[in-house]
Amino acid sequence: MTQRLRVTVWNENRHEKTHEKVRSVYPNGIHAAIGEGLGTDEFDVAYATLDDAEHGLTEARLNETDVLFWWGHMAHGEVSDEIVERVHQRVLKGMGLIVLHSGHFSKIFKKLMGTSCDLKWREADEKERIWVVSPGHPIAEGIGEYIEFEAEEMYGEHFDIPQPDELVLVSWFEGGEVFRSGCTFSRGQGKIFYFRPGHETYPTYYNPQVRRILSNAAKWAAPSTREYPKYGNAKPLEAIKAKG
Amino acid sequence: MTQRLRVTVWNENRHEKTHEKVRSVYPNGIHAAIGEGLGTDEFDVAYATLDDAEHGLTEARLNETDVLFWWGHMAHGEVSDEIVERVHQRVLKGMGLIVLHSGHFSKIFKKLMGTSCDLKWREADEKERIWVVSPGHPIAEGIGEYIEFEAEEMYGEHFDIPQPDELVLVSWFEGGEVFRSGCTFSRGQGKIFYFRPGHETYPTYYNPQVRRILSNAAKWAAPSTREYPKYGNAKPLEAIKAKG
Amino acid sequence: MTQRLRVTVWNENRHEKTHEKVRSVYPNGIHAAIGEGLGTDEFDVAYATLDDAEHGLTEARLNETDVLFWWGHMAHGEVSDEIVERVHQRVLKGMGLIVLHSGHFSKIFKKLMGTSCDLKWREADEKERIWVVSPGHPIAEGIGEYIEFEAEEMYGEHFDIPQPDELVLVSWFEGGEVFRSGCTFSRGQGKIFYFRPGHETYPTYYNPQVRRILSNAAKWAAPSTREYPKYGNAKPLEAIKAKG
Amino acid sequence: MTQRLRVTVWNENRHEKTHEKVRSVYPNGIHAAIGEGLGTDEFDVAYATLDDAEHGLTEARLNETDVLFWWGHMAHGEVSDEIVERVHQRVLKGMGLIVLHSGHFSKIFKKLMGTSCDLKWREADEKERIWVVSPGHPIAEGIGEYIEFEAEEMYGEHFDIPQPDELVLVSWFEGGEVFRSGCTFSRGQGKIFYFRPGHETYPTYYNPQVRRILSNAAKWAAPSTREYPKYGNAKPLEAIKAKG
Repeated sequence: MTQRLRVTVWNENRHEKTHEKVRSVYPNGIHAAIGEGLGTDEFDVAYATLDDAEHGLTEARLNETDVLFWWGHMAHGEVSDEIVERVHQRVLKGMGLIVLHSGHFSKIFKKLMGTSCDLKWREADEKERIWVVSPGHPIAEGIGEYIEFEAEEMYGEHFDIPQPDELVLVSWFEGGEVFRSGCTFSRGQGKIFYFRPGHETYPTYYNPQVRRILSNAAKWAAPSTREYPKYGNAKPLEAIKAKG
Repeated sequence: MTQRLRVTVWNENRHEKTHEKVRSVYPNGIHAAIGEGLGTDEFDVAYATLDDAEHGLTEARLNETDVLFWWGHMAHGEVSDEIVERVHQRVLKGMGLIVLHSGHFSKIFKKLMGTSCDLKWREADEKERIWVVSPGHPIAEGIGEYIEFEAEEMYGEHFDIPQPDELVLVSWFEGGEVFRSGCTFSRGQGKIFYFRPGHETYPTYYNPQVRRILSNAAKWAAPSTREYPKYGNAKPLEAIKAKG
Repeated sequence: MTQRLRVTVWNENRHEKTHEKVRSVYPNGIHAAIGEGLGTDEFDVAYATLDDAEHGLTEARLNETDVLFWWGHMAHGEVSDEIVERVHQRVLKGMGLIVLHSGHFSKIFKKLMGTSCDLKWREADEKERIWVVSPGHPIAEGIGEYIEFEAEEMYGEHFDIPQPDELVLVSWFEGGEVFRSGCTFSRGQGKIFYFRPGHETYPTYYNPQVRRILSNAAKWAAPSTREYPKYGNAKPLEAIKAKG
Repeated sequence: MTQRLRVTVWNENRHEKTHEKVRSVYPNGIHAAIGEGLGTDEFDVAYATLDDAEHGLTEARLNETDVLFWWGHMAHGEVSDEIVERVHQRVLKGMGLIVLHSGHFSKIFKKLMGTSCDLKWREADEKERIWVVSPGHPIAEGIGEYIEFEAEEMYGEHFDIPQPDELVLVSWFEGGEVFRSGCTFSRGQGKIFYFRPGHETYPTYYNPQVRRILSNAAKWAAPSTREYPKYGNAKPLEAIKAKG
């Protein structure tokens, strides 16, 4: 794949408007920090937020998106079911989807997983270490043995997701919990990656190793160029015709 | 597990009312043939159908069900979303679910899978062979190398499901197709088994090997007795408290 | 399965002979503590150790074994290749195998995995918590959210194993590491469970929750009664014969 | 990945020397047909055969190989254990490995799988169809719904391999069998792809869709550039040091 990937970063963008602390960490919004981290060498990055018309996720926008990033938290319920359905269809048709942190509770992630996607959490400025458990996986490319954060929100097991296709990353938290922090799934022709860290009050999306993982994940989730499979009534084949 | 499993067999039960051919094969309904196949030695079998009040799937009934069988085809759209939600919650809490044949397109299966669950099909009285590809799996217990049907409906790949946790059975069809016919999934604390054959015009559910698979699957899908996991805000642990 | 399972607990049994500390914790050997934990209600337990003739793993003994437990550490190299081959064949034919702690480096586990089975380790009397990440799995039956040990040896990722069929347990260690501590695999008709804890200087195998897991695992790994698959030249089938 | 992949195609190259029929199909050897199929735009292709010194797989050659293709059949036993061990170590360190057709019984594949790798087979000039069951997988890129061969050798289930990480392709055979024909595995940092077709008497490796799959597989199996994980005694971490 030599052509550039077309990425759309979707952000709820509400904490940034209402919480001074969050605005100070992400003055241009979490989405901007994610998009800047991807850079312009390999990606064409567009942005979309909850308060845009159609949440910024028009048919046109989605049709021009290879990989969609999703960050949401306090307003999952405000995302319209119609747009969720539209994103769902695009994923099944091949669009990649990178779900970040509290996006675990987004409508689109729950719809794709089929489970509650519930988990444990605690805000206690805890140290986190994200260990690589699939060292040959392309999403772990360029990453050391672990990524360490001095302070992050804790997410703990049980994380109610289907068994991932590949478990790439597992987190350790100072307070005694573990978490499956980097998980791949496929749904239809689409590839999905869930990545745990990124609480709105921490500068996680400026971390170079986090940025490398997001860049790796976008490339890994690039759509197939295959035609969408044919479904439905299949015409009689020769052996059967001969029989009839 | 020495105690008896409480099974509820749910059947749409519409073909039986409207198609003479189906009634001749399953005079008491597909559900009755499935339930009789399980027998009374190890199972307490109850029945529920679409036209029962609440489709027969009241809270009380579901709370007394260890494993639910699901056969539906022509009336998926008539199953109420409220009941689907109720069944979904019970599966996440641990109830086993065995989805049969055209149940691949039921609301509950699609909700649990997160995909379209679409496939190819053809009605041509084709020979089918279901091969065991996981020979040590408990669902294959007592089954020979393959089960052969002189005539069944064809289901062909691509079958749009998430990658199964375990692929137990793969079908061969005379007309040139293959199909992943026995697939396990876990969702929450619940275990799910999809089993392909069972078109309403064929006596598939009287086949002793099919009956053995359904009995094996029910036992495999028996609920855990573990308490449902705790989710939400986790209280501060000692190491963190000391830090505060 | 109402009949009793025939378990053989294999132990290297060398630390017990040479280290006073180990003897004080396991005066009758680690194998005895494991076997006593299984109890006599559901299991017929036999023992075998490295210094027995043929390491106690004669053809007769293996043929009468449904599930084999394996604890080894300081003398992996003394296990004869011939016996390893014999155990390997029995696993492929259906015998269950439960590999414990430092057994990760045993010849039989490496042969079944195809990888180095290497890992990180540290002896520092660290607190360990083993979290259940597959809450509906039969091996987690009866276990709470986690099992806590005040002191155990640390094992850390990367653990060089193939991706497990099912990841049931993940460990947290005080010193900052995580580990995939409960992993299932299938090889041939045999089921394999790797379980991390059980360093020879700690009373881990007296822990009631550990004992419950070992008992669950033995039942889960019980052999299929299916005939071993037929391999080799398959005779021409009708469709082909007609063609010839 | 803009740089070119260094591929080595290893071929037993014995049938070509002794069977006129095979020589007529592959006058320069099966390896040449495979290498020519990869082309020179994206790959640097080298060749190695059984009768070369060290089977052509010197330390130097392997260190300069990103992805190794393996075709063998009648002389698996002549491959030296030392070379097999060398290839095994390189795979664990990250080299990709594409195992073709009768290579299922090679020493290196059996060592990596840990199973017998046995299967059913029949030489009857049967029609084969290889269906794509993972439509979004990069190895299926550019491939239609299925690849059809007018005549190939049959391989049938049960195929005694561990459950693949991803099942990409499933074969249908005229004579009534199915086979998991495209399977991915990871071992250490290395990625492995098994691909079924390619009997020595058929022109399978000239088929454009087969060539596309082999090219896709080589790119998918490209090594990670991550440093090999650190194993062994891990030094005490701060929390533990403070405790001591």
